[in-house]
Amino acid sequence: MHVLLPDGKQLDLPQHATGKDVAEAIGPGLARAALGVRVNGKLSDLQSQVQEGANVEVVTKRDADAMQLARHTLAHVMAQAVQELFMAEGADRHRIHMGIGPVIENGFYYDFDLPRSLNPDDLVKIEARMRELVKADMPLVKYALPRDEALERYRELGDPYKVELIEDLPTGEAITFYEQGGAEGFTDLCRGPHLPRTGSIPPHFKLMSVAGAYWRGDETRPMLQRIYGVAFATKEELEHHLWQLEEAKKRDHRKLGRELKLFTFADDIGPGLPLFLPRGETMRHEMEKLVREKQTAYGYQHVWTGHMVKEELYQKSGHIANYADDMFPPMVDGDVRYRLKPMNCPSHMTLFNSQFHSYRDLPLRMAEFATLYRNERSGQLAGLTRVRSLTQDDAHIFCTEEQIQSEFALALRIVRETLDVYGLKDYYVQLSLKGDEGKYVADDDKWARATEALRAALDSEGVEYVEAEGEAAFYGPKADFMASDALGREWQLSTIQVDFIQPSRLGCEYVTEDGSKATPVVLHRAVTGSTERFLGVILEHFAGDVPLWLAPEQVRVVPITDHHRAGALELVEKLRAAGVRADVADEGERMNAAVREAELLKIPYIAILGDRELENAQVSFRSRKEPNQNGVDADAFVQHVSANAKARALEIEPLA
Amino acid sequence: MHVLLPDGKQLDLPQHATGKDVAEAIGPGLARAALGVRVNGKLSDLQSQVQEGANVEVVTKRDADAMQLARHTLAHVMAQAVQELFMAEGADRHRIHMGIGPVIENGFYYDFDLPRSLNPDDLVKIEARMRELVKADMPLVKYALPRDEALERYRELGDPYKVELIEDLPTGEAITFYEQGGAEGFTDLCRGPHLPRTGSIPPHFKLMSVAGAYWRGDETRPMLQRIYGVAFATKEELEHHLWQLEEAKKRDHRKLGRELKLFTFADDIGPGLPLFLPRGETMRHEMEKLVREKQTAYGYQHVWTGHMVKEELYQKSGHIANYADDMFPPMVDGDVRYRLKPMNCPSHMTLFNSQFHSYRDLPLRMAEFATLYRNERSGQLAGLTRVRSLTQDDAHIFCTEEQIQSEFALALRIVRETLDVYGLKDYYVQLSLKGDEGKYVADDDKWARATEALRAALDSEGVEYVEAEGEAAFYGPKADFMASDALGREWQLSTIQVDFIQPSRLGCEYVTEDGSKATPVVLHRAVTGSTERFLGVILEHFAGDVPLWLAPEQVRVVPITDHHRAGALELVEKLRAAGVRADVADEGERMNAAVREAELLKIPYIAILGDRELENAQVSFRSRKEPNQNGVDADAFVQHVSANAKARALEIEPLA
Repeated sequence: MHVLLPDGKQLDLPQHATGKDVAEAIGPGLARAALGVRVNGKLSDLQSQVQEGANVEVVTKRDADAMQLARHTLAHVMAQAVQELFMAEGADRHRIHMGIGPVIENGFYYDFDLPRSLNPDDLVKIEARMRELVKADMPLVKYALPRDEALERYRELGDPYKVELIEDLPTGEAITFYEQGGAEGFTDLCRGPHLPRTGSIPPHFKLMSVAGAYWRGDETRPMLQRIYGVAFATKEELEHHLWQLEEAKKRDHRKLGRELKLFTFADDIGPGLPLFLPRGETMRHEMEKLVREKQTAYGYQHVWTGHMVKEELYQKSGHIANYADDMFPPMVDGDVRYRLKPMNCPSHMTLFNSQFHSYRDLPLRMAEFATLYRNERSGQLAGLTRVRSLTQDDAHIFCTEEQIQSEFALALRIVRETLDVYGLKDYYVQLSLKGDEGKYVADDDKWARATEALRAALDSEGVEYVEAEGEAAFYGPKADFMASDALGREWQLSTIQVDFIQPSRLGCEYVTEDGSKATPVVLHRAVTGSTERFLGVILEHFAGDVPLWLAPEQVRVVPITDHHRAGALELVEKLRAAGVRADVADEGERMNAAVREAELLKIPYIAILGDRELENAQVSFRSRKEPNQNGVDADAFVQHVSANAKARALEIEPLA
Repeated sequence: MHVLLPDGKQLDLPQHATGKDVAEAIGPGLARAALGVRVNGKLSDLQSQVQEGANVEVVTKRDADAMQLARHTLAHVMAQAVQELFMAEGADRHRIHMGIGPVIENGFYYDFDLPRSLNPDDLVKIEARMRELVKADMPLVKYALPRDEALERYRELGDPYKVELIEDLPTGEAITFYEQGGAEGFTDLCRGPHLPRTGSIPPHFKLMSVAGAYWRGDETRPMLQRIYGVAFATKEELEHHLWQLEEAKKRDHRKLGRELKLFTFADDIGPGLPLFLPRGETMRHEMEKLVREKQTAYGYQHVWTGHMVKEELYQKSGHIANYADDMFPPMVDGDVRYRLKPMNCPSHMTLFNSQFHSYRDLPLRMAEFATLYRNERSGQLAGLTRVRSLTQDDAHIFCTEEQIQSEFALALRIVRETLDVYGLKDYYVQLSLKGDEGKYVADDDKWARATEALRAALDSEGVEYVEAEGEAAFYGPKADFMASDALGREWQLSTIQVDFIQPSRLGCEYVTEDGSKATPVVLHRAVTGSTERFLGVILEHFAGDVPLWLAPEQVRVVPITDHHRAGALELVEKLRAAGVRADVADEGERMNAAVREAELLKIPYIAILGDRELENAQVSFRSRKEPNQNGVDADAFVQHVSANAKARALEIEPLA
């Protein structure tokens, strides 16, 4: 048989050759370094056979895929350590059951059904034992068993989970196991792939936590104990990740939301339904104002379509058929059923249909800041980043096919300019395209033209993008903005989608230049996504130290004694007249306490007024945005803060 | 027996004396002028007996109540004319049925079940016959029948409606009839009161329209034909009323909404749920911006609490018990029932409760522009003035009892300043106070102090007010702003209510100066009421010619030929940069058509650009706000429009 190597060369091999055979055939050095192979792009291990004619690449530790193998093998090593721990405690082997142990981003987990709850000390012990098992450098041996025998093995162990997993495998599929450390070691039902030996695992791993997890994610099934671990190729990567987690905890927007008095949740209102306190509402308002300004400048028109519609509309649009699970239940009023809006598109199309339109009206850009309601599972809710009430900065652009490129480019520009204002410059676009399967509506030519239009727009706007074939929605291609925050975490924010189907379902029409009727294409587009989620993201991005223009209170004026209070109030008035959000410290509060309170609220400027300042019409200020200064001209200070806030400056030049 | 007269004198009368007897005892002149009496303040007719010791006032045509009597008698006269018309057509008397015929504002109506539909010609005939019946000067004779006899009479006539009315009367109540023109004339089951003779009816009446009306307003009962009429004491009043109606028709905000492309309704969305087109959304946005600015300037804080809550909250607040009929049905999600918010108060109180509060935080003024949902009966819906989705400019002020007066005064000031911006200067306040009945919570002293505080605030703010005893809600006194529009029609707009009960129901607390806990008083307050309703009112008030600052498009730039288009676009850019909402006429549109379109949209300024204007950097403009001018400096024009829009000027000084 033969396989093809990355350099295009053909390699002749004996029948049933494995990945290891390939590496050895290339050379002994590579054979020693080999940790796995990619066969036709798919990761596999050295023990598995390669197919005739396949493209084969050898994976070494320099390859990013090596960590996939290591993380998977670590899950088995952890399972062995857990099993040993409980056996050493004298537990019955028949009471130690295992669910699944997959690789996840940055690490791995394994689900266990154990005689007792795990505690933090257990994790220390398990991790220590894992390091010994890694050092023991045990080979992982793969073998297959007939279905009956495999079932028999786990039935004997009284293990319901593995039995269920095997029963769910299609008959005819090979049932494979990986064994490490021989019969005394650990064997697991597993499809692989794995490293050849535990000794190849880099030591840069750490067990993180234990959490409850329903078997197969189903709330009606037993709850297992899930141990999470992280693992990296280098010490630096592990440390960076742990720092990132530590930072993220400090920056947790839920914690910041409480501390900065921005928002809250209440049992009486409902999960996933945030309430915004005055400071949070001010931020929302500023965020939406920014997008509204940009949209207005770029010829978008704002509309208002409320929050509920008759269910019939969603019958027509197809949302009841495809999206009902994500919607709140209907309000049944006699014969009429109403639904809260989970999306604006059907309402915007209804509004489009209420007026006569000719080709001269296109492109018609309809924008709305509407709060939408989606019945996310309660387990999925997370502060502001996953809510049930979300205010999208949404728009629908009705256009011709020829206008897709320019409208897409315009949408890209608005998104980029907006992210720029927040200093989010590290992003790329994922362009989701049609795959080969037949779920897509509209003909291939239409798709091809739209795809070309999107690529051309991305190129002309100079946006970095990656293509994901087969990831498009059935109704058209789309572009998602993936932005990295200050901790390097990736967030999906803005989205732009082409829609070939809904406009015709809802009967949208315009009169073309030759007097005939045609259906417009619609681009669905959000700038920051939703106000709630974006606020959560930027709170974490800035660790609560948001830019001056966005700060709910921009200046806190602190009189040194109550004697200076009248002067402080005068300064507040001046600041407010200049459009600055300013307030004075509470009456009777001591200066140090007042300064401390303002610091806890992360107010960008604290202006302190005493005798000297008032005599000379000056302020002394402490700032989170620039060096502190004493004895600055008060009017110059007002002007400085006002100008920087109005300009939405991210970096502030110190006041000279 | 004796009665008391308005001048305090006592009048001795024989037993069973009637109103007529009272008038005659005072003097023959008054007896001739007498049309009715008021007995202890209640209108009655001359035939009815007066009670021993009652206060009696004689009603003559100079008394406003005389028209109450005349309108009621007109309903009977109309019924007689209708009956005669159909009898003359040869209809079977058993097929002519009558429902009820009450007095309404400015007139009267009567509901009929007839063998055929009425048409406009019928109204002319009926009205002509009514004038004859008035001239015939028939006396109205009142008499009572025993229940059985009364029922028998209508059963014989096969009249289901009157039978039902009698059956619904409590047994023991007198069943009275009024007969006019003897047995040949017309007799009706009626409680009265009426004029003594048809000849006393002033001739200033007119039949207006026929409309379908369900028997007793119940959609499951038969639909009757209702004839509406208006009637006034003088020709001038009738003419003014007819002019007002004619004007109102032209100004109908639903018509203006279509013509000015502001808003629409759609079957797929639902009745009472308006959709705002871009021009309407711009107006909403400007209106809310105005109130937000005022509120911010006066120390209100804005919050955001979404649109749905758990039903439990409304169980606690008492809304489920008292307000469920006005709410949309619940969304039932497993064990949880959610409701759309019909009011913000419980949400604002929940938000209040989420934070610790001391007396230093009071008064705490929480404002929100939240869209509320109320399931108004479909028959009550009317364009924007009665909708199911209403965006209140709502606020709740948490304060101490001592702060009621100053907070109420501040609320009055915001309302007045806001109404001023719209040029609504003709208003008064109806102050609804506690009555004698026992439905009110909180003790008398608390009510008395609050009532004094409201009066003092109204006096200090110089607001005209009338007191309405017994009109207060059970939870506290309130003040409603009644404003007259350009046609003199009265609208209830803003409202300020004192609430002694809900804060304690929802457990609102603050820590007082001595460290104990206390419940705040809450003022509920809206400025314009709701954005939707207020928009409807001011569209009619201004007949669509809204002030410059509020106009969705402030300047339409029209190039004389396409040759001048580039210059026109340049002017649009300049205007926009100055914050003016401006647009250019469609490409290829002829100048006259473009001007006409802008006029139909009532755009305040049309700037026309030709060779001369462009050569000299000038514009010629037509304006709805000031005299037209040619050859004005373009920059001066931009500055002029921008400054007047920013200042929200109502009257515009012509550009010099």
